[in-house]
Amino acid sequence: MNRSNLYYFSQLSFFILIFISGCTSKEVSPNISGKSDASIEEPIQYALVIHGGAGTLKREDMTPDKDAQYRSALDSALTIGENILLSGGTAADAVEKTINYLEDVPLFNAGKGAVYTADEHHELDASFMDGATLEAGAVGGITNIKHPISAARAVMLYSEHVMLTGQGAEQFAQEQGLDTVSNTYFDTPFRYEALQKVKALEKENLSLSRSSVYPDKKFGTVGCVALDTYGNIVAGTSTGGMTNKKYGRVGDSPIIGAGTYANNSTCGVSCTGHGEFFIRYAVAYDVHAHMAYTNIPLNEATHKVVNQKLVEAGGSGGLIAVDKFGNIAMTFNTPGMYRGYVKPGKRVVSIYKDEPN
Amino acid sequence: MNRSNLYYFSQLSFFILIFISGCTSKEVSPNISGKSDASIEEPIQYALVIHGGAGTLKREDMTPDKDAQYRSALDSALTIGENILLSGGTAADAVEKTINYLEDVPLFNAGKGAVYTADEHHELDASFMDGATLEAGAVGGITNIKHPISAARAVMLYSEHVMLTGQGAEQFAQEQGLDTVSNTYFDTPFRYEALQKVKALEKENLSLSRSSVYPDKKFGTVGCVALDTYGNIVAGTSTGGMTNKKYGRVGDSPIIGAGTYANNSTCGVSCTGHGEFFIRYAVAYDVHAHMAYTNIPLNEATHKVVNQKLVEAGGSGGLIAVDKFGNIAMTFNTPGMYRGYVKPGKRVVSIYKDEPN
Repeated sequence: MNRSNLYYFSQLSFFILIFISGCTSKEVSPNISGKSDASIEEPIQYALVIHGGAGTLKREDMTPDKDAQYRSALDSALTIGENILLSGGTAADAVEKTINYLEDVPLFNAGKGAVYTADEHHELDASFMDGATLEAGAVGGITNIKHPISAARAVMLYSEHVMLTGQGAEQFAQEQGLDTVSNTYFDTPFRYEALQKVKALEKENLSLSRSSVYPDKKFGTVGCVALDTYGNIVAGTSTGGMTNKKYGRVGDSPIIGAGTYANNSTCGVSCTGHGEFFIRYAVAYDVHAHMAYTNIPLNEATHKVVNQKLVEAGGSGGLIAVDKFGNIAMTFNTPGMYRGYVKPGKRVVSIYKDEPN
Repeated sequence: MNRSNLYYFSQLSFFILIFISGCTSKEVSPNISGKSDASIEEPIQYALVIHGGAGTLKREDMTPDKDAQYRSALDSALTIGENILLSGGTAADAVEKTINYLEDVPLFNAGKGAVYTADEHHELDASFMDGATLEAGAVGGITNIKHPISAARAVMLYSEHVMLTGQGAEQFAQEQGLDTVSNTYFDTPFRYEALQKVKALEKENLSLSRSSVYPDKKFGTVGCVALDTYGNIVAGTSTGGMTNKKYGRVGDSPIIGAGTYANNSTCGVSCTGHGEFFIRYAVAYDVHAHMAYTNIPLNEATHKVVNQKLVEAGGSGGLIAVDKFGNIAMTFNTPGMYRGYVKPGKRVVSIYKDEPN
């Protein structure tokens, strides 16, 4: 526990320091084509990409104020991550702290703002993977840890296991000195309203078909992938799961290979979508496998997996990824994905499909 | 529930019928080279392969009586599966019923005979995947369902989810009419003794290193993969987990892509080993990915994954697999693996490394 406290203290000091220095480049140079950069085989200094969930996100359903809130939150998240990388911090720190911020913003379905289960509480999942060591950690179904992504990282760093669940995972996180909260900390009125709507729909239609598991077609999750100046890639994903979740359902977010994967030899990936498909298609690992075994570039690999294999299967969602050269992919088969990336001299924040990618 | 009961009744009648017909071929024609059949690209009628765990299994540690008990159980399991396939049953039925039998045999760490958790009870995991539809089901941390593999198959067939855990999974299994038992049903004196030994070891050495998580280096799991006469491949895995398990640890067995994978286009796979490595290396999916993306035969793919990638990483264990042509792989990097397979005119049952494979 001492070790953890020291670790967090050092992280905090570092964080304050880089915030004061305010050394972020804020130019936005969107790629007009709507596609991410063509593959570059010259390593760049650093790159960081984030998502805040994919789904039926349409301009007509969004107020200007809500739109601005999302963009501002995504932009702030990029600044947090970029500042860490610019100051020589590690991809692991950048991913954890960026996701911690997104977990604290109630707009996203992760940490504060997590959706409600069928019995009106919150169960959170997260996973974290280090592409240098291929070490990984994950937590499933936790209810009282403020920052699930930090718990996943702690599992990776301080346990001999990869995946811990339920009360056991909470006990472990507490032993590591992580912040605990009561389950009601995660409450938000708009998520409660969403649960009531889904329950009403369910009552109307008792034989809900598989495709209507997500009646609003919004897959709330947050994720971050970073390449640091040392050439290391780290990926992390955190979620509040599925509204009206029952039966101890586990989605792809805490599953290494499904929701999260990182490997310095190829890329890091964080997913968001209809989790059942992402597990069955081992989506995050499959992007790596395509690159490793068929030698195709990142964008081609993510396109094959998200726009071909998942679309053929009927699996909605998307992913973000960074390859070892700093190329970015933000690939989704839904009308929108809250997303953004930053690399030297370039920053993009987007929501809808027709925006810069 | 009516649907489930009808289903089980029809299965039972079918089962009795084929048992009476007693149409099994019992010839043993081991492959002297110690390697599985070279790849055959002519589809064969059917094939079924099983494992009962891998690890430090050495002749000198085994009594003749124990050795015979294991071989007899593996042989009986093959007969159950083969009879189903010979009578035109599906790979899914063959895999479920074969694993049900192995779950009932206390020799194996699955169902009756499951190991103990740190707090002296049993938590069981299983997963099931259909290579024709790529549908899958899994249960994690269940305590009162007699046949976890049947619960995993029920999740696949009757829920909109892939993975259910804990009490929620148990509630779902009960709603499907599956047999329930008290947790003490899984008790066996020799597993209790094993727990006490591990606890004593842990007391002696509080800073247990990662490599000593499995002090006896035995990875108890059971699994089955079958190719039926319709050309469909199904894989399943069931386990009692890890002796002295804490913190709600989840291994690879209930993780689709890690412990279990099936795809008619390539192969089906069931794993057994140090679960953390099998998750991080997405072992079951990786065998498929090697075959699908580099067009290598099954044996080469399993060799790469188990004897190269896992060995380099320090991950002990093994796997069984069947490809779409009926080729069998039983690949492990430990001194032994309880294993066997059957296909037309051929049956092998082995334990140690130097035996027919």
